[in-house]
Amino acid sequence: MYSEKLPEAIDLSHHLSEVSKARAISPLKGLQKYMTKPGLITMAGGTPSPEYFPFSTVSGETLIPESFPLTTQSSSSFSWFWKIFGAGAGKKEKTTSFTINKWPAHTGDLNLATALQYSPATGLAALQKIIQEFSQKVYQPSYKNFTTLIDAGNTDGWGKAALTLLNQGDGVLCSEWTYPSALAGIRPWGIKTVPIAMDGQGMRSDSLRETLATNGTLRPHVMYIIPVGQNPTGATMEAQRKKEIYDICVEFDVIIVEDDPYYFLQQSPYVPKDQRADEDAFSRTSTEEKFIAQLAPSFLKFDYQGRVIRLDTFSKTVAPGCRLGWFTCNPQFAERLERAGETSTQAPCGFAQVMVTSLLLNWHYEGYVRWLRALRLQYQERRDAFIDALADAFQLDMAIEINGHRKGSLVYHASLKPERQFSEKSTMRYSKPLFSFVPPSSGMFVWLKLHLEEHPSYTAVGYKALEFKLWTALADHGVLFGFGSMFSASTVTDETKGDGHFRISFSSTEHDDMKKAVSTFALVFREFMKD
Amino acid sequence: MYSEKLPEAIDLSHHLSEVSKARAISPLKGLQKYMTKPGLITMAGGTPSPEYFPFSTVSGETLIPESFPLTTQSSSSFSWFWKIFGAGAGKKEKTTSFTINKWPAHTGDLNLATALQYSPATGLAALQKIIQEFSQKVYQPSYKNFTTLIDAGNTDGWGKAALTLLNQGDGVLCSEWTYPSALAGIRPWGIKTVPIAMDGQGMRSDSLRETLATNGTLRPHVMYIIPVGQNPTGATMEAQRKKEIYDICVEFDVIIVEDDPYYFLQQSPYVPKDQRADEDAFSRTSTEEKFIAQLAPSFLKFDYQGRVIRLDTFSKTVAPGCRLGWFTCNPQFAERLERAGETSTQAPCGFAQVMVTSLLLNWHYEGYVRWLRALRLQYQERRDAFIDALADAFQLDMAIEINGHRKGSLVYHASLKPERQFSEKSTMRYSKPLFSFVPPSSGMFVWLKLHLEEHPSYTAVGYKALEFKLWTALADHGVLFGFGSMFSASTVTDETKGDGHFRISFSSTEHDDMKKAVSTFALVFREFMKD
Repeated sequence: MYSEKLPEAIDLSHHLSEVSKARAISPLKGLQKYMTKPGLITMAGGTPSPEYFPFSTVSGETLIPESFPLTTQSSSSFSWFWKIFGAGAGKKEKTTSFTINKWPAHTGDLNLATALQYSPATGLAALQKIIQEFSQKVYQPSYKNFTTLIDAGNTDGWGKAALTLLNQGDGVLCSEWTYPSALAGIRPWGIKTVPIAMDGQGMRSDSLRETLATNGTLRPHVMYIIPVGQNPTGATMEAQRKKEIYDICVEFDVIIVEDDPYYFLQQSPYVPKDQRADEDAFSRTSTEEKFIAQLAPSFLKFDYQGRVIRLDTFSKTVAPGCRLGWFTCNPQFAERLERAGETSTQAPCGFAQVMVTSLLLNWHYEGYVRWLRALRLQYQERRDAFIDALADAFQLDMAIEINGHRKGSLVYHASLKPERQFSEKSTMRYSKPLFSFVPPSSGMFVWLKLHLEEHPSYTAVGYKALEFKLWTALADHGVLFGFGSMFSASTVTDETKGDGHFRISFSSTEHDDMKKAVSTFALVFREFMKD
Repeated sequence: MYSEKLPEAIDLSHHLSEVSKARAISPLKGLQKYMTKPGLITMAGGTPSPEYFPFSTVSGETLIPESFPLTTQSSSSFSWFWKIFGAGAGKKEKTTSFTINKWPAHTGDLNLATALQYSPATGLAALQKIIQEFSQKVYQPSYKNFTTLIDAGNTDGWGKAALTLLNQGDGVLCSEWTYPSALAGIRPWGIKTVPIAMDGQGMRSDSLRETLATNGTLRPHVMYIIPVGQNPTGATMEAQRKKEIYDICVEFDVIIVEDDPYYFLQQSPYVPKDQRADEDAFSRTSTEEKFIAQLAPSFLKFDYQGRVIRLDTFSKTVAPGCRLGWFTCNPQFAERLERAGETSTQAPCGFAQVMVTSLLLNWHYEGYVRWLRALRLQYQERRDAFIDALADAFQLDMAIEINGHRKGSLVYHASLKPERQFSEKSTMRYSKPLFSFVPPSSGMFVWLKLHLEEHPSYTAVGYKALEFKLWTALADHGVLFGFGSMFSASTVTDETKGDGHFRISFSSTEHDDMKKAVSTFALVFREFMKD
């Protein structure tokens, strides 16, 4: 077997936080060696009788894995119109159904008597098995004894990982722009952020090395990173950069927490509408295996020591309300994370566990990957529709970025189109574009850089006030974007110089609304620049 | 309206922990004032499109509220035999069913597009409403602006409450015997336990006053208490004691965290089998309203200042796998608890929310209370069956306890019955009973005190080693009880002198297994005392 040749995880217990080390083995843990005794009469736990669970059965009707196509539909019939012109107009979506009974008909059947009972923080055996096999097949960790453990989604997972590894006053390495809730979760505990400069692939390895080399004994020993469809920039880190970063983390003994919710939403490069083909690189892959092979590798693929804690979630691939995800990490960390689970969330919700397990048992691995292949294309089409709308409303010009956090990327610079070509004076020409962006390579967001230098008040109030002013004007006109400054990992910034940013999500807005939002944006931005 | 005459909560913000105070308003919170704008186009959050939630519908088939009777069945036909002789033998249990679609047919309908999406940590509006009304009707807080907030069950709720109120080094007032997981959750954070002596009603108010009066400026400002069906002792605290404790907490400015999972499992006093009637005090109450009025009041009933954080859960009344419960507390604490939720569990699982909400919408308040009335009787019958089994296997004698943590209670003292009346020498007579217990007044546990003084090794090895030895011998014979020492809130105890304890759960063991467990206990205990 593949993994047999691999090394085992090394001892990394010196990274455990004081809180984590102090977590006792669960008081009930001592009972577990007796639990498997045949005919055991257990009167130890405060477990209600399943007879009194008022649910006799729960059922689900689920879409088939082939519900969405693998090739781009013609640009006038976006697949989310299916709801209106397809299912919504009488054409029924294809589903299969399952039912889970309270009592199992055969040993090992999923059943509510077990799923809705108290259970170890490791969750249902069938789900454990699915997750372990999935991580093995897809991420291929480079050490033998990797362990998977379910959690209540990546926010929960990151919180548990952070407090398992970090003490008050410790620093966390992160990208200079990053997911604000990840920081909001740890800052109240007195944990500091140490931002690392980015380029078009995300975190820079040279900046990482420089930070670690100059921090001496106070240097951070934990990294938080979103390597695919980086939030907010949309950047995806390729194999070479990941290997560089991994090797630096080995050298400086850093644990990598890989938060990867957008892994399966990897997208082909944006191609302007008139040059776009029905097929793209991802669609051309003919099998599930080839699709998986084409995805940027996880940090786990380089992890021969067990220093990566990978966070996976069903939030983006099934539904956020599942509140279900999992860790993949070395057994030493998994054991401490399990202890953390026992005294907080316990096992994730039993309803979610049976629902997701049933879905995945029905779909099988191949069906799930088929679902993911189509899902990424759906989000790619949404991304393309949004950028197409920007191209309709603004003048877009392309250039390779040579500086800053987008270095090396193909950037689209947007300028206002003339208001009315002849009837008005051309008062609104600016020497620089109004905003610019890199089409994301995964995920759900377009990260706009706002070029506000030519705004009349720029020198007086600075970019941050202007960013907020434009954001507020847009909100007042009925369009809500994410404002950029909340994604900054720096606690101290120069508020007067720099660029504003918006993070715009294209993941769930209808096509017509996208177009409307972009028109409003053009209109409001034009007015905004006048004063 | 009732609550209009009541005062508002006082300012208790000085109780907030450093971590809690440092929790920022969620970055997305600023967007919320725009959220209700009609026609708003939201492109701010990383929300997947609900079209890609693979669940088209989920359904549940649920027991009707009248599924279990309100009067005791004759002693030979325990209701859990219904499964075998009733439903299991062809007689189908009565159920109703519900289905939740992805897309709502009417505005306000429960739907998966909302429930399985990201949502505020406050959860579904329909569930919020149910919980708020339920807390108002049942617990009747004595201040106007009490707030309810869902959480992921009481373990999660207690963890969030503790870290919202406590800093490292702080002490928590708790009963001398208490739920070990509650302590396991906070001790790793450097929080100390300050045990208070108990009597037959649980925590003693005189001991509480004494501890608070002598602790000066270092005195604890948070209390953890399980006032009904106390875990492990089974004691229930009546109104008078609760009022005394509440008043002391006002005097010394202490916040009470009331962990009350067993509130609805309140039971009539145990009556020996041959004197037992089909009806008891609780069964005689003819209406839902009278049933609720008969329950011991919550601390909320006395709370005119907003210093109680009550923890409710669906774990014991619906199913533990729901991982769903709620806080009832003042709005100041609720706001901080919501912030804690946003960066950890977020909203509880959407499947659980729709399942439990649908159940409660179908049952209505009256149906749910009808369910609870029967549920408490089911557990009472299980308690009675277990104590009956003890009465069959041991010689039981009653006496009022005058000392210790059972003071004032009617205690059953158990002695061995002669092995064989005439054929053997009466070698096994002890001057003291082997163990004793107080039949619990709520909950799921019988708390046995083991009288080990006459064991040959008592002086040499002490009670703790003997407790563990007896526990192990039982486990080796296929019976698992909870061992008592893990319920001690003291970190330092004299291991040589004192009594051992077992906590025995009667909540989910079949009747035959209970009898078998008790016979094994008698047999093993008898052998154990010989050596």
